[in-house]
Amino acid sequence: MNNFEFVSPTKIFFGKGQEEKVGEIISKYGYKKILFHYGKSSIKTTGLYDKIIASLKSNNVEYIELGNVEPNPKVSLVRIGVELVKKENIEFILAVGGGSVIDSAKAISCGAKVNFDPWLFNIHQEVAIECLPVGVVLTISAAGSELSNSCVISNEETKVKNGFNNDLIRPVFAIMNPELTFTVSKYQTACGIVDIMMHTLERYFSNVEDLIFTDNIAISLIKTVITAGKRVMVDPYDYNARAALMIASSYSHNGLTGLGTNVYFTVHKLEHILSGVHDEIAHGTGLSILFPAWAKYTSSLLQDKWLKFAKEVYGIEEGNSQENIDLAINNLKNFFKSLGMPVSLSEVNIKDTELNTLASLATTNGTSYIVGVKKLYFDDILKILEQCL
Amino acid sequence: MNNFEFVSPTKIFFGKGQEEKVGEIISKYGYKKILFHYGKSSIKTTGLYDKIIASLKSNNVEYIELGNVEPNPKVSLVRIGVELVKKENIEFILAVGGGSVIDSAKAISCGAKVNFDPWLFNIHQEVAIECLPVGVVLTISAAGSELSNSCVISNEETKVKNGFNNDLIRPVFAIMNPELTFTVSKYQTACGIVDIMMHTLERYFSNVEDLIFTDNIAISLIKTVITAGKRVMVDPYDYNARAALMIASSYSHNGLTGLGTNVYFTVHKLEHILSGVHDEIAHGTGLSILFPAWAKYTSSLLQDKWLKFAKEVYGIEEGNSQENIDLAINNLKNFFKSLGMPVSLSEVNIKDTELNTLASLATTNGTSYIVGVKKLYFDDILKILEQCL
Repeated sequence: MNNFEFVSPTKIFFGKGQEEKVGEIISKYGYKKILFHYGKSSIKTTGLYDKIIASLKSNNVEYIELGNVEPNPKVSLVRIGVELVKKENIEFILAVGGGSVIDSAKAISCGAKVNFDPWLFNIHQEVAIECLPVGVVLTISAAGSELSNSCVISNEETKVKNGFNNDLIRPVFAIMNPELTFTVSKYQTACGIVDIMMHTLERYFSNVEDLIFTDNIAISLIKTVITAGKRVMVDPYDYNARAALMIASSYSHNGLTGLGTNVYFTVHKLEHILSGVHDEIAHGTGLSILFPAWAKYTSSLLQDKWLKFAKEVYGIEEGNSQENIDLAINNLKNFFKSLGMPVSLSEVNIKDTELNTLASLATTNGTSYIVGVKKLYFDDILKILEQCL
Repeated sequence: MNNFEFVSPTKIFFGKGQEEKVGEIISKYGYKKILFHYGKSSIKTTGLYDKIIASLKSNNVEYIELGNVEPNPKVSLVRIGVELVKKENIEFILAVGGGSVIDSAKAISCGAKVNFDPWLFNIHQEVAIECLPVGVVLTISAAGSELSNSCVISNEETKVKNGFNNDLIRPVFAIMNPELTFTVSKYQTACGIVDIMMHTLERYFSNVEDLIFTDNIAISLIKTVITAGKRVMVDPYDYNARAALMIASSYSHNGLTGLGTNVYFTVHKLEHILSGVHDEIAHGTGLSILFPAWAKYTSSLLQDKWLKFAKEVYGIEEGNSQENIDLAINNLKNFFKSLGMPVSLSEVNIKDTELNTLASLATTNGTSYIVGVKKLYFDDILKILEQCL
């Protein structure tokens, strides 16, 4: 196994009613003036917005609001946030929402401390060495940004979606009440389930063998998401299943399920091309379409991992190796289907005529490749995309 | 599931050669004068002592030494450490060793900030609100103190061994090189394996049902320890197995495997009576003897947990429920035996004539009880101890 450094310092406040403590918690950290960052109208219709405001007010926490974060959060709003935070001398950013809001908050928190365009962090031309602290009230189980060190932002002008990792941007606290996710739509819940699974699948299916601890944790998390995912599809008000998804979302992407391995996130990189070009494609949808095809394309390089996965997750161990692996991949694809998720490009109206463009974008006009257990050049990506039609 | 708060902020530096960075790491945190706390001569014979000193010196970290921490660390040495730290204006405590050294360092770190006897923390008459930061170079996989919020100290005068929990005392960093555990004796390795398992078993076998995430993580950790434990018994130089035990030791006791449940640590409380009176009994030994008997005595209250355990850990699901549970408990007991661990009181020379005294000590002369899924009164404890003969 590889040497590693790992830290996940976020304090979790988990369970019913915890969101009502938000003002008290911020106040205990000593912050007096904050940016209250959120998305569209959903937190207003559910009543969460009012609860947050009440808690902030009763704890004398002054707040400036910035809403309207969109899915695939945009650098244009990040830039507005940075200006606001600087002008108002904001000390702390409270993100109330899911991955998009949290990532937008993280980008603003880094931008607040520099005098250049925050987009430079996302395209790796600059590295943040300081940021404002970010806290989270989580409303959807999916991206895992509430504990992660990653921040993915989209640039509307260049159509590029890009992320950076930095331990500085891990939130200081995450308030997680599974009840807040009861009203998340079936489709968004399903997207989240795929996203959570993918954060661990991308780490698990890598080329470091004999990771006894890490592989067992990864498998356990996958089993958790399958069990809980099936349950919330039947009953969206199943508290324990919603709770399991919520904790799994955090631990699937804080790094725990990849300790000591090579983390490439190949399928995420492919997906970012897809949803970078097609803003209407949710991240989870892109992953659901791409992963099974990538898995088939690379499974011969990851035989032991797939055989363990087939056995532990699906109890498959009787047949020959390749059959078992193919069966496991199909089971996974069928699970995504059972959630109502698209598993082909045609389902999201992408036609074969576009594949060249996508493969070209993924490889800077065929001059580069996507890293992974197998380097994916233009031709490899084209073959994977063809499998997705 | 229960609401919970959870934080595990310790930064892990994991893998080969990481101990050589210790001076650099401390220096980056900004500490200039430290207490270098350790146990008996083993770190000198292995060469670790020299490496630590070299790293501290080359990074201009001034150090005061305090060695001689014993197993079941003593409050008398803690008191000496507190005086030393105060006199020398120490900013940081580096614990190089296992759970005993780390717990001793934690006790000193709390004592350094108060003007009363640090033992008062352990008997819960005082609560620490401030402490010196502690860092760790881990040399044995067992107690999990490198990430935990607990601190167990023994009082030689009163023969009482007692612990307290406080998130403040979680170490700021833990340097974990599995190679440093290659030379840990077979017996100490076995004690550690039992200790690691017990931290999760005590959390898993509790009375909160349907903890999908937590129970799966707990089961995965147990499987990891069994797999890796068997391998290190065959080959103590098996790096990946030593690595798995090392990470498992940390995550078995940082709280992750008990999120949302009731944590009683009943068997630990029983064991502290045993090793409090019998200083020669290692913590892992006491647990190995007591757990199977406690498990049999309480299994009817934890049927679902035991059935899941029997199925997931041992593949047992054919027979009737009680048979399956008994088989799983026996398998576990046989695993402890296979490690060379005692599984009866007679093996550690405790006779039936002493049981009354032990049960009496555990219940303040029969007037109190030990909390748990079932409250254990004098008679209950006597029955459990009789099962251990």
